[in-house]
Amino acid sequence: MISYQVVKLKVNFKTLEEFENFREYGQQELSMKEDLEDNIVENDSESPFYGVYYGNKLVGRMSLYQIDKKYDRYFDPPQDYYELWKLEVLPGYQGKGIGKTLVDFAKSLGLPVKTNARQRSDEFWHKQGFEALTYKTERDRGENPFVWFPTGVSEKKELS
Amino acid sequence: MISYQVVKLKVNFKTLEEFENFREYGQQELSMKEDLEDNIVENDSESPFYGVYYGNKLVGRMSLYQIDKKYDRYFDPPQDYYELWKLEVLPGYQGKGIGKTLVDFAKSLGLPVKTNARQRSDEFWHKQGFEALTYKTERDRGENPFVWFPTGVSEKKELS
Repeated sequence: MISYQVVKLKVNFKTLEEFENFREYGQQELSMKEDLEDNIVENDSESPFYGVYYGNKLVGRMSLYQIDKKYDRYFDPPQDYYELWKLEVLPGYQGKGIGKTLVDFAKSLGLPVKTNARQRSDEFWHKQGFEALTYKTERDRGENPFVWFPTGVSEKKELS
Repeated sequence: MISYQVVKLKVNFKTLEEFENFREYGQQELSMKEDLEDNIVENDSESPFYGVYYGNKLVGRMSLYQIDKKYDRYFDPPQDYYELWKLEVLPGYQGKGIGKTLVDFAKSLGLPVKTNARQRSDEFWHKQGFEALTYKTERDRGENPFVWFPTGVSEKKELS
């Protein structure tokens, strides 16, 4: 199997144009575009996105953001963790391990990882070593929270 | 136009069976089912769901949950608000104003309402008087937050 490289994506017009190929395109992308157009952020500034290229084409991406321990409602002991969202591989590039490569990258950073699993994606997340959390209305509000625990970390049992 | 009645849904096996007709079925529904089966919650206990029936059939629903002011990161002044999610009307019953009836019910409760708008649903939310918020990565993490402001309430400008 080919090995893919995960790169941190910069905010620039090329990246934003590539984002238009992805199904999950919303306020996050529009906001980055506006910030760039209005010079609120500089060209090539940091984005929360990581991507995988196939040649010159961005074919997979995810957003990954480190959440401060003080907002942690998922883990025991409470700690910084990564929220992962907008994981997506373009049609035609799926089934090649690109999604797994992105998730493995997130797991390699040494902190727990939390995601909101899309409908019918449970099998994928289980394969990546993630577990479904006990659903709590006041915390999860319709999310399907799946998490990956590094050694020594477990699910927080009570809501604070 | 027919007027529809919004009712608060109870947790019971009939409701949970009706939920299986809806596309957005996940941890929230599974958790309610398990809680009922394991006698963790009583039959006919409160759920965060509201629904619209057409005859005996549940044809629309939403989840609505009051969030405490201390967690408010959206409104100025900070206040209790409703988080609305899983708004869905079954195919065959769409275009009859059932979605609007549910949203109007949420708005009638006197507090701001916040939702995470699905892809390509902006037009619907604008029609209901909702506005897209300025996207903030550390708060929104891939959500497309839309809110409805009662008189005297505006968007919170700075994150605390």
